[in-house]
Amino acid sequence: MLRYKATIAYDGTQFAGFQLQLKQRTVQGVLEKAVRTIAKSTTRIVVNGSGRTDAGVHALGQVIHFDFPFELPAAAMLKALNSLLPLDVVVKACVIASPDFHARYNTTGKRYVYRVKRGYYTDPFRRFYTGHWKYDLDVSKIELALTDFVGTHDFSSFAASGGSITNKVRTIFAATVVEDTVNEELVFEFYGNGFLYNMVRIMVGVALEIGNGRRPVHDILRLYEVKDRTQARYTAPASGLYLKKVYYGDGPADKVELDTFS
Amino acid sequence: MLRYKATIAYDGTQFAGFQLQLKQRTVQGVLEKAVRTIAKSTTRIVVNGSGRTDAGVHALGQVIHFDFPFELPAAAMLKALNSLLPLDVVVKACVIASPDFHARYNTTGKRYVYRVKRGYYTDPFRRFYTGHWKYDLDVSKIELALTDFVGTHDFSSFAASGGSITNKVRTIFAATVVEDTVNEELVFEFYGNGFLYNMVRIMVGVALEIGNGRRPVHDILRLYEVKDRTQARYTAPASGLYLKKVYYGDGPADKVELDTFS
Repeated sequence: MLRYKATIAYDGTQFAGFQLQLKQRTVQGVLEKAVRTIAKSTTRIVVNGSGRTDAGVHALGQVIHFDFPFELPAAAMLKALNSLLPLDVVVKACVIASPDFHARYNTTGKRYVYRVKRGYYTDPFRRFYTGHWKYDLDVSKIELALTDFVGTHDFSSFAASGGSITNKVRTIFAATVVEDTVNEELVFEFYGNGFLYNMVRIMVGVALEIGNGRRPVHDILRLYEVKDRTQARYTAPASGLYLKKVYYGDGPADKVELDTFS
Repeated sequence: MLRYKATIAYDGTQFAGFQLQLKQRTVQGVLEKAVRTIAKSTTRIVVNGSGRTDAGVHALGQVIHFDFPFELPAAAMLKALNSLLPLDVVVKACVIASPDFHARYNTTGKRYVYRVKRGYYTDPFRRFYTGHWKYDLDVSKIELALTDFVGTHDFSSFAASGGSITNKVRTIFAATVVEDTVNEELVFEFYGNGFLYNMVRIMVGVALEIGNGRRPVHDILRLYEVKDRTQARYTAPASGLYLKKVYYGDGPADKVELDTFS
């Protein structure tokens, strides 16, 4: 029995999210099917992800692990998986991991990207790959507001209800926005030690409302205090969200790293 | 009765091509439905395109015209159409045209883009928006080969069978390729006075085979002579093809224009 760790990318458009579901196409479902096919196993082989992603949410660097009954070189595993997986999932890297590596429990941080298409009409080619905002935006206000996310805060106002997690304190190491002028898109990037349910999409929603002048620039500080989700109702759509990278104690250097967007 | 001319973009992925078909979702079908809804018409209002595009083929600047029973300002028509059209079609511009303007018969040229994704695996996010080529390519060979397309030639070897057109002589004003290093894509652009069925996709197929060394650099000149489609079998997939612009006697300046890619 060997434990494999793999980094995968997927287009979330045609998946009902990451997590296995009966009768619905999920990322975990197609991964487990591929792994079981390679192993010729008649029983389930569990594929663990670093965390769930919702329906329509994409990944550029989701991390998974699974235990495999035979010894297969990591390069052969990568090739076998890619030959079996549908075209909307690709394995970018695969290594044999330590038996105590866990894709979910060992995470020390995650990096998300959120893309917002600007302009009056939705771009037909970007409708599944961006959120859309047709109103005015003062990007300098958004830049200023994003600095309020950095640090350790209680994100209760930024968490969708439904989770069992009671501790809503998280640390954000970096929150940035750049303008992709070629595509007329705003590209947000958030790097933190953990994120609550829908947290990035709600953070983006508040940032856009600040950029449009519907909220004061430092409204985020007030939202930390009120701990009230109903005061941040707008959740930016799933289509703009990408899980970009998952960290496993790769050190404090992470905190200053801001790699190129993709 | 007023004739409207409109420039539209569409993501061809979920259409069975441009042309109206019974029981299949087509671009012409959704356009005619929208126009008829605005006119509150019980009879068909024909929407004419500059030409058909196949299933999966995209448009950045397809041109259409239709006759509308009432006088509606062009800006209002544009807004009404966009409010009724599905998200994979957008009207980018709309004007009231002369009654003798015809989107198909008046064309003097067309410009197509073809995007080829490189790399061993298909990119999950680009699978509907590019062709894919995983073999080696010498781009300088392709650049050289493309110059053989420029000029007036018999394109019989580059036309899929099935059309009723017997004159297969066309003039290509420009044929270029650039590397989009951010996306690891090759972007071909072809501008000519007209294109035969599947012609761009076959031209790209031949160009890629030249880039890979499977054909001599000037094999295109030989293909003009043999006039034999079976010697250019590979048709690059529909997903990489975009109708970028349609020209209507906009003058010889067209010939040197090479606008930015999008």
